[in-house]
Amino acid sequence: APLDQSLLDGLAELAVRVGVNLQPQQDLVLSAPVSALPLARAIARAAYRAGGGLVTPLVTDKEMTLARFEHGADAGFDRAAGWLYEGMAKAFEGGAARLALVGEDPMLLSAQDPANVGRANRANARAYSPALAAIAGFHINWSIISCPTEDWAQRMFPDLPARDAVARLAQAIRLTARLDQPDPVAAWATHNAELARRCKMLNEARFDALHFHAPGTDLTVGLADGHAWLGGATEARNGVRCNPNIPTEEVFTTPHAARTEGYVRATKPLSHQGTLLEEIEMRFEGGRAVSARAARGQDVLREMLATDEGAARLGEVALVPHSSPVSQTGVLYFNTLFDENAASHIAMGQCYASCFENGAGLSKAEIAARGGNESLIHVDWMIGSDMMDVDGIHTGAEPVALMRKGEWVRG
Amino acid sequence: APLDQSLLDGLAELAVRVGVNLQPQQDLVLSAPVSALPLARAIARAAYRAGGGLVTPLVTDKEMTLARFEHGADAGFDRAAGWLYEGMAKAFEGGAARLALVGEDPMLLSAQDPANVGRANRANARAYSPALAAIAGFHINWSIISCPTEDWAQRMFPDLPARDAVARLAQAIRLTARLDQPDPVAAWATHNAELARRCKMLNEARFDALHFHAPGTDLTVGLADGHAWLGGATEARNGVRCNPNIPTEEVFTTPHAARTEGYVRATKPLSHQGTLLEEIEMRFEGGRAVSARAARGQDVLREMLATDEGAARLGEVALVPHSSPVSQTGVLYFNTLFDENAASHIAMGQCYASCFENGAGLSKAEIAARGGNESLIHVDWMIGSDMMDVDGIHTGAEPVALMRKGEWVRG
Ligand SMILES: [Zn+2]
Ligand SMILES: [Zn+2]
Ligand SMILES: [Zn+2]
Ligand SMILES: [Zn+2]
Repeated sequence: APLDQSLLDGLAELAVRVGVNLQPQQDLVLSAPVSALPLARAIARAAYRAGGGLVTPLVTDKEMTLARFEHGADAGFDRAAGWLYEGMAKAFEGGAARLALVGEDPMLLSAQDPANVGRANRANARAYSPALAAIAGFHINWSIISCPTEDWAQRMFPDLPARDAVARLAQAIRLTARLDQPDPVAAWATHNAELARRCKMLNEARFDALHFHAPGTDLTVGLADGHAWLGGATEARNGVRCNPNIPTEEVFTTPHAARTEGYVRATKPLSHQGTLLEEIEMRFEGGRAVSARAARGQDVLREMLATDEGAARLGEVALVPHSSPVSQTGVLYFNTLFDENAASHIAMGQCYASCFENGAGLSKAEIAARGGNESLIHVDWMIGSDMMDVDGIHTGAEPVALMRKGEWVRG
Repeated sequence: APLDQSLLDGLAELAVRVGVNLQPQQDLVLSAPVSALPLARAIARAAYRAGGGLVTPLVTDKEMTLARFEHGADAGFDRAAGWLYEGMAKAFEGGAARLALVGEDPMLLSAQDPANVGRANRANARAYSPALAAIAGFHINWSIISCPTEDWAQRMFPDLPARDAVARLAQAIRLTARLDQPDPVAAWATHNAELARRCKMLNEARFDALHFHAPGTDLTVGLADGHAWLGGATEARNGVRCNPNIPTEEVFTTPHAARTEGYVRATKPLSHQGTLLEEIEMRFEGGRAVSARAARGQDVLREMLATDEGAARLGEVALVPHSSPVSQTGVLYFNTLFDENAASHIAMGQCYASCFENGAGLSKAEIAARGGNESLIHVDWMIGSDMMDVDGIHTGAEPVALMRKGEWVRG
């Protein structure tokens, strides 16, 4: 089933103008799975037409990835392409922007040995850290956008013929990317302004903590000292405003790594680097997940949390109304980019330096002193639903109702 | 037309075992155009099955390449992905092997502005030099092998339907890779031994120069002091014997950068980074091409020779009998990997450090002092035919007949 070229061209235009906001003669590092090549090509054309510099594709292939786990020697699972990620970091230092296309089969590695997958993911995360630092720290403008691939669509709609599955995913992507609007670029400007208004309100409130209450969840997430709420467009340190995620519906900030207490239950499965984790439950003490369970993918969850000291602590907390367009599509995407925008969520691992007041000026030590978490991973998982209440807490004062039954309480 | 999987698996096995001779847990940098992905996948499987380390694909896409020339801003044609090539060089320092798959449309860029193509090639060559140094210097084991792609086959056989064109190219690749032999790996061992015997003879003769004589050609190529002839398998500095080219039929060595005199005419078109150069003629004085013409592609030729000081001097001279299997297939491949193995040839630009006695131990300055040429480019072009005579010259002595009518005279 060939993809609708007008959708690909629309997504490409949005990715270049709104997502990365590519600047004249700015180079672009464009990562994509083979299945997303039709979108990658549309993006390359849009990038060059927009006056961008050199577009360099970094293409991954599911068959080669599978070959590693099916035929590779045991000794090889701790290897990673550090040289490539160091190169990417160098590209970013040189001013290149980054655009990542997603569209992989979310369950690609689910039949492989979780220990090998865990070793490979850990080695890759370690090797990736120079590039991740530049991305998470917004040294440069970057974005992630998705392609309606057959691999992915068939996991979402296993009962439909491939053509129909792709058409349904394509329609969901069109709606959540606001490509159904007469002027999508203008629609994103309006949406960004709304998210900015919400952030301003939360930043002025300066809560000490958030309290989440729902079936299976009673969680207090302490916020980092000097935390800042972000959402929608972000100004990178190079001065370029970009939309790091398309779609995005969240406002998010930095928890204090040592001040989360209570228990929490996932409201959606989490697709983590090729494996599906279902019904995650965690209990936190002093900011650390002291117990963690999953009805499916328990081994992968354990491997993930054992990546390093910070992997079992929070690096992000995010609020998303249950009425978000992503949630409205009513489907599970098995993909964080979408599912996190259907629900309030928390993330294990690395915090965003940009989620601090004056974040760009803070050293690693200063971020740590304010309670910012450090880790090789950053994994979001979904805790929001239409049964979730959220309060803002000022120590010693009455809680302020922020969300009731999954919706914002007020303006 | 889907490719014959047994041919792909045979090529993959040959590339891994004979081409790069991948070692246990050695990483592999695998570059390929999108059209060669079926072979790249077979190679990844063969590499993992052989106990190799991590295979990292670097995939290029003709549509993205074309998009650059069709839509890119003028200012962008001097840009290159230096960060990627520096990363490759780092991978080689770390012990990774390299395998490059060819199969691109050899005329991909022939409709583009030669000035832009020249600028892009020059910028790319400059950026590529850290990686090329490790490859040309045989710091690591490496190889180039080709995939019978539709893009390429249709240029070779424009009058055939795609399916038939691919089948003819596939058959030619099968024969020249010796995959028609009962035991191709053993056949390559025999062939390598024969090339080694020929090199030993030439190395013992220690000629001062070679003299080429044919219609349109009367050329004396002085050989570098302490030059060494190589052919077939090469032992890289990491101790691994590899076959850098499959197919390979040549024995080759280093000319003296200042001691080529006379005129020479190409016997086959040269496909140079997307453009076809036809009927090249050059005249050399003091080792330098003082005049250069081409009936087609003159602008690209001029751009190429202007890359740097060394681009107009020779870095390689190679002898190939007219009866080579590649020549026997009787077709023009528009691809140096094949066409250079159908005919004796010379190369403009960078010499191979390995083509010196004790080459691995020589500094850049020592190589230059012996007459080794230095350049950002290395471009082979074909001068041999069934009308070519070649003599070995010892200064002041009778010429020694090496080839008559394109065939080895003896031994
Ligand atoms: Zn988030
Ligand atoms: Zn996140
Ligand atoms: Zn050669
Ligand atoms: Zn050569």
